[in-house]
Amino acid sequence: MIAQTLPPPYYAVIFTSLRTEGDNGYGAMSDEMEALARQQAGFLGVESARNEIGITVSYWRSLADIKNWKANTSHLLAQKQGREEWYDHYKVRICLVERDYEF
Amino acid sequence: MIAQTLPPPYYAVIFTSLRTEGDNGYGAMSDEMEALARQQAGFLGVESARNEIGITVSYWRSLADIKNWKANTSHLLAQKQGREEWYDHYKVRICLVERDYEF
Repeated sequence: MIAQTLPPPYYAVIFTSLRTEGDNGYGAMSDEMEALARQQAGFLGVESARNEIGITVSYWRSLADIKNWKANTSHLLAQKQGREEWYDHYKVRICLVERDYEF
Repeated sequence: MIAQTLPPPYYAVIFTSLRTEGDNGYGAMSDEMEALARQQAGFLGVESARNEIGITVSYWRSLADIKNWKANTSHLLAQKQGREEWYDHYKVRICLVERDYEF
């Protein structure tokens, strides 16, 4: 559940969101997109939690891998439906992970 | 709830954790630490969500600001108690936010 990523440097995409009311197919699509992301080149892991807001952090080997995933046809459709139906507001941050440690 | 940070570059600290059973003073300390973090130089915002795992992302102007907050005396005590009582496992990632966008 805590992603076991490789030693830095690698990339993180922090996706923070406020959902609309109701499921409207969101849960199924979210599971499907996570399964699809796991199959992409350069995917290193994902962590997700939601209560008042949702935070999903996905980890990637490179910026090119992130760009490819963003442009994936099924993912583009999900992004469109996300803006139309599922999200009131979201913010995406593309980050270079410089250092990590754990307990 | 979604942090309104300044234009990149800035820094993010992604803190992902698995809690132990029971509260054991965690909730109160967590609120206290968030209030204290907000008073630190270079603090830009924080986002937090928890269900199976907890994800807290705090945003900072620079690495020096992150280092100062990590070394804050009250925060050091909280970190110690975190390792002894509140967390089964956690991972910290220090990241340079290169790009962001929102909807």
